[in-house]
Amino acid sequence: MSGNSFGHLFKFTTFGESHGVAIGCIIDGSPPNIPLQVKDIQYWLDRRKPGNSKYTSQRKETDKVEILSGVFDGKTTGAPIALLIRNVDARSKDYDDIKDLYRPGHADYTYHIKYGNRDYRGSGRASARETACRVAAGAVARKILGENIEVKGALIQIGTKKIDHSHWNWAELNNNEFWCPDRNIVPIWSKYLEELRKAGTSVGAMVQIVASNVPPGLGSPVYDRLDADIAKGLMSINAVKSVEIGAGKEVAAKLGEENADEMRIVSGKPEFTSNNSGGILGGISSGQDIIARFSVKPTSSILKTLQTVTVKGEETKVSTKGRHDPCVGIRAVPVGEAMIACSLADHFLRAKALREV
Amino acid sequence: MSGNSFGHLFKFTTFGESHGVAIGCIIDGSPPNIPLQVKDIQYWLDRRKPGNSKYTSQRKETDKVEILSGVFDGKTTGAPIALLIRNVDARSKDYDDIKDLYRPGHADYTYHIKYGNRDYRGSGRASARETACRVAAGAVARKILGENIEVKGALIQIGTKKIDHSHWNWAELNNNEFWCPDRNIVPIWSKYLEELRKAGTSVGAMVQIVASNVPPGLGSPVYDRLDADIAKGLMSINAVKSVEIGAGKEVAAKLGEENADEMRIVSGKPEFTSNNSGGILGGISSGQDIIARFSVKPTSSILKTLQTVTVKGEETKVSTKGRHDPCVGIRAVPVGEAMIACSLADHFLRAKALREV
Amino acid sequence: MSGNSFGHLFKFTTFGESHGVAIGCIIDGSPPNIPLQVKDIQYWLDRRKPGNSKYTSQRKETDKVEILSGVFDGKTTGAPIALLIRNVDARSKDYDDIKDLYRPGHADYTYHIKYGNRDYRGSGRASARETACRVAAGAVARKILGENIEVKGALIQIGTKKIDHSHWNWAELNNNEFWCPDRNIVPIWSKYLEELRKAGTSVGAMVQIVASNVPPGLGSPVYDRLDADIAKGLMSINAVKSVEIGAGKEVAAKLGEENADEMRIVSGKPEFTSNNSGGILGGISSGQDIIARFSVKPTSSILKTLQTVTVKGEETKVSTKGRHDPCVGIRAVPVGEAMIACSLADHFLRAKALREV
Amino acid sequence: MSGNSFGHLFKFTTFGESHGVAIGCIIDGSPPNIPLQVKDIQYWLDRRKPGNSKYTSQRKETDKVEILSGVFDGKTTGAPIALLIRNVDARSKDYDDIKDLYRPGHADYTYHIKYGNRDYRGSGRASARETACRVAAGAVARKILGENIEVKGALIQIGTKKIDHSHWNWAELNNNEFWCPDRNIVPIWSKYLEELRKAGTSVGAMVQIVASNVPPGLGSPVYDRLDADIAKGLMSINAVKSVEIGAGKEVAAKLGEENADEMRIVSGKPEFTSNNSGGILGGISSGQDIIARFSVKPTSSILKTLQTVTVKGEETKVSTKGRHDPCVGIRAVPVGEAMIACSLADHFLRAKALREV
Repeated sequence: MSGNSFGHLFKFTTFGESHGVAIGCIIDGSPPNIPLQVKDIQYWLDRRKPGNSKYTSQRKETDKVEILSGVFDGKTTGAPIALLIRNVDARSKDYDDIKDLYRPGHADYTYHIKYGNRDYRGSGRASARETACRVAAGAVARKILGENIEVKGALIQIGTKKIDHSHWNWAELNNNEFWCPDRNIVPIWSKYLEELRKAGTSVGAMVQIVASNVPPGLGSPVYDRLDADIAKGLMSINAVKSVEIGAGKEVAAKLGEENADEMRIVSGKPEFTSNNSGGILGGISSGQDIIARFSVKPTSSILKTLQTVTVKGEETKVSTKGRHDPCVGIRAVPVGEAMIACSLADHFLRAKALREV
Repeated sequence: MSGNSFGHLFKFTTFGESHGVAIGCIIDGSPPNIPLQVKDIQYWLDRRKPGNSKYTSQRKETDKVEILSGVFDGKTTGAPIALLIRNVDARSKDYDDIKDLYRPGHADYTYHIKYGNRDYRGSGRASARETACRVAAGAVARKILGENIEVKGALIQIGTKKIDHSHWNWAELNNNEFWCPDRNIVPIWSKYLEELRKAGTSVGAMVQIVASNVPPGLGSPVYDRLDADIAKGLMSINAVKSVEIGAGKEVAAKLGEENADEMRIVSGKPEFTSNNSGGILGGISSGQDIIARFSVKPTSSILKTLQTVTVKGEETKVSTKGRHDPCVGIRAVPVGEAMIACSLADHFLRAKALREV
Repeated sequence: MSGNSFGHLFKFTTFGESHGVAIGCIIDGSPPNIPLQVKDIQYWLDRRKPGNSKYTSQRKETDKVEILSGVFDGKTTGAPIALLIRNVDARSKDYDDIKDLYRPGHADYTYHIKYGNRDYRGSGRASARETACRVAAGAVARKILGENIEVKGALIQIGTKKIDHSHWNWAELNNNEFWCPDRNIVPIWSKYLEELRKAGTSVGAMVQIVASNVPPGLGSPVYDRLDADIAKGLMSINAVKSVEIGAGKEVAAKLGEENADEMRIVSGKPEFTSNNSGGILGGISSGQDIIARFSVKPTSSILKTLQTVTVKGEETKVSTKGRHDPCVGIRAVPVGEAMIACSLADHFLRAKALREV
Repeated sequence: MSGNSFGHLFKFTTFGESHGVAIGCIIDGSPPNIPLQVKDIQYWLDRRKPGNSKYTSQRKETDKVEILSGVFDGKTTGAPIALLIRNVDARSKDYDDIKDLYRPGHADYTYHIKYGNRDYRGSGRASARETACRVAAGAVARKILGENIEVKGALIQIGTKKIDHSHWNWAELNNNEFWCPDRNIVPIWSKYLEELRKAGTSVGAMVQIVASNVPPGLGSPVYDRLDADIAKGLMSINAVKSVEIGAGKEVAAKLGEENADEMRIVSGKPEFTSNNSGGILGGISSGQDIIARFSVKPTSSILKTLQTVTVKGEETKVSTKGRHDPCVGIRAVPVGEAMIACSLADHFLRAKALREV
């Protein structure tokens, strides 16, 4: 109820501030007897961690995860799985400059108003550092979903520069620092980000997540639709300002027959001839690929000088140094994957509960 | 947990099928002693009900609401408020044709797979008829929020035809059948929809909701952010495929300084010089207008013939007669308003609970 | 969150005041395709309804239930099941006398303080009338549990007069007006209650519920133990002041070896040689009979004159006429059964969700 | 939903096994700006920890708590408070003997059936060690409730030996190792427990908790009554088999006029002349002392030989050595206090949320 949990049957609750002792989470709801080791989680954390590339924050966090409970003899027991990640490179002194002012685009102002206090050190709970816990929870969700269900994300736009979807090649993702599926745009993005960094600014981005081999029947109408829960999960990621499912925003401009995903019988089974629905009909998975997209705003912390106000109500200017991602959308890719994996694991367990007696 | 509830402290649970005896909801969590009469709810229901204009379904539902509990001497008591709306114009015979096939774009297929049964009469729970209950709950939410907080929606795009935002005039909304704030586009839309109706097809739309005078401090980071809960609420509306907050999808193309909402001191108080954030920072309301947009897909039931499959696994064709909205986006306007009003009421109560002791 | 719901996966939410238009509930979480008809619910409602015997309230409520949703072609669909019971014999005028005072033992005072208002007509939500909805929900829970699992209750004490447990005979329950399993005590209780009625007073009682053939493995440690949820469910019934599981309060006086339920192998399977645990170990069902007991206080509304205070803060006296049960414990038997059936159904679904993938 | 959380607005979730790396909890829902230091929590943990007296387990756990998050500059921030307690004296080898059998009265059998696995080392999650986290959460709950509200527990019965309630003196609690308010029975209990220890057995106990100065109006009818939530909280404590509120089980034997708590006006305010209700009417606090009692069964692990069965289905005998409390009821006193403090804090926040707008 205080907003630090996600999910219902597969539920995780996170804690920890960017510049506190540690961050971590409790995953409550994992079925028992699922093989789980530190390396299963560490693999995904390593993909998200800062300092991976020159285009992300240079904060040196090892993000080493410790499993405190819930696993015995290499398997989940059904008890809550507590994960702990110690903070090792928090430099709170970096934040002395902004201690008494509100940074535009940040949650400084709203947290202060809401809570009557403010953890100015790296934004506290509002920091993107919290997303490491989402990725850790997502790693456990993937184990529950099994190897057949894949949840993969890609960066499809940085600023005004979009990939060419006809060039989409999943295999390219590991060949660049952007999770980019279109090799042609990689050098363009590299040059672009280099220019933006020199200019002391940041840029927005667009991420697409695809979940394959999701069984039909996941999702709980009417309010806990699979797409509604995915929308909530993605919109809860720092800096996200839009969420789309399937044809998304484009449906507004379409006619009925253009948007219809017709059905055929192929090899004796129903199949859809298109996927404008993004794999979800009436809030329930259809068996098609689940396709979601979200936009990520440009990092609010930029070197360029902006007008703002102080805690005491005076006008001032701010230029943020610190170690910030010029395009926070890059690191949002594994986070988006994790949120969708968690939503799927939750609805997977919910579907099991309501299966016929 | 079975998905028929929305909210936490201000919570409503709906029931009823499109062609069943009745629909209704229980609103649990209303504070006591709030003046509430049938007419307070009926007013909003009348705005959503079908048959209001020639551009919406011709089903004749009076949508007369009965308050069964929770109100005594004209005021809420703090007990659950049960609302009942009898169905009066359900023509189940209209659905005999589609009893044995899956309509493209509908939830027929996924419900059947999920539940192993199918209420083919008007889609059962998947029908947009359920949204009347959302509007009823929204009416109570508005009473809790008080008259100062306004939640207003407008239709800003039908198909490829968008309004001119510089012509925005809230006063126009009651002068047309579209909830349209731009008088210039009204005749264009009328003509367009007339053509589409003749062509036996449907079209998508875009809706924008604005909530004004929302106090800062509403929203519960990290997962129950106000924007995340709004995204869930809007995405849970039938046919919605995207949700945006503030600058929304456009942020992907922006630079840091373009997207920054700078702050000034005006009359001794902090103010923002722009509202790309849509009134929400770090998941918490900032005091600016809350701005959300969502796209609504074209009605799936169209006269045009589409390919589909039968329940028995054979290919067939379908052309839907029945009484359907050519542009379901029109009636989505009051529903979108209601969902945002409910999200705000929920976070309003949540903020009260966590206020300093 | 406002307290009108019970359960998590099998969840019901009730509404309605004693002297309002109607009472009812929404059951959300029933699996689909379970045969369900009005008569399946009416059967249990008829057992609870007032006016069944001369020892219960003479209010003439037919308690006719209407299924508004969630059932199609005689089976549950998986959609919420809404049940409605119209109030037909509410005599609000009976309450004019107590409109301005607080009846001792009633919730008049605490409701007034909590909500700042008061529905004096038959106690509103605090009335035992609400328990009809519990019985209705319990009827659906029984269908989910299946015929093999039996939940049966018995009255084992009225005032100082206890049954002889060695005479326990379930078959006797339908032969008397008390749900009493010991035929010898029936005439004693009859005479006793007749005297109490003449004396214008009321008396407490003790109820025991036994659930048989419950599969082992139900219950979710650590906080949602099966016994903890049963304790909550039973303590939430009007007038209940204690809950015991198995040996209950007696364990305080026992030694380790006296209380131990030893195990043997019988016909190749583990069996317990006693059942002090009441069928629950570590919060999880063991496969033995689940045994729970609860005490019910004497009806607070009595003819005898009691000291009390008025709403305006003056001392006064009160003698309650009206139509009240001299021993509300009698009608608590089917209610206790229902709460345990609902707890079991909830944990039955929860166990399914967490079963190995 | 998996049962490791307690509360709604003031909610805590625990993790950790008796013989794992650590135990701990996340408290989500603390209001901001409440002074909180490690010592505020450590004080209460020290009261519960094993090895405090010769009558409790000799396991040497320092139970040193670490605050990982949610506190900044000595005050709560409103963010989740994560607490960590490392296990330091887990001797898993002690459990090799019972690795392959089910100990009577323990959760070995039911956990194995439910989860298909078994953490035999000190019972894993089923260990009373988990209760340290409840006490830690209770310490935070007390800070929220403020110093005026006191929650105090006492041991009132060990085996057949009950205190004399007329000798009750709260000041005695710190003068003995039993939390006993009656100094006369202390030497009797000491001698009794010494004899039981020599005899290799254990004994049950009864605990009473009193919460004073609780404001009227806490509790959410109908299902989340304050007494129902207290019953759930207390019954969820290891080894508890009964819960009573106020006159508790005795009400079954009472007449209406005996049980009635009459009201008077004293110094211009309503007062009750007795407290059979235990401070709760209709599920809502009345302002009187809240009084709850619970029985604790004798420790299941005893030196005396008992019949049991092995994991493989063979009969065997068991005699438990290890380091066990002869009367686990003693250490249940601070745990019971904690659960009630947590229930009150939860309803305290819930009452704030629903207060009139």
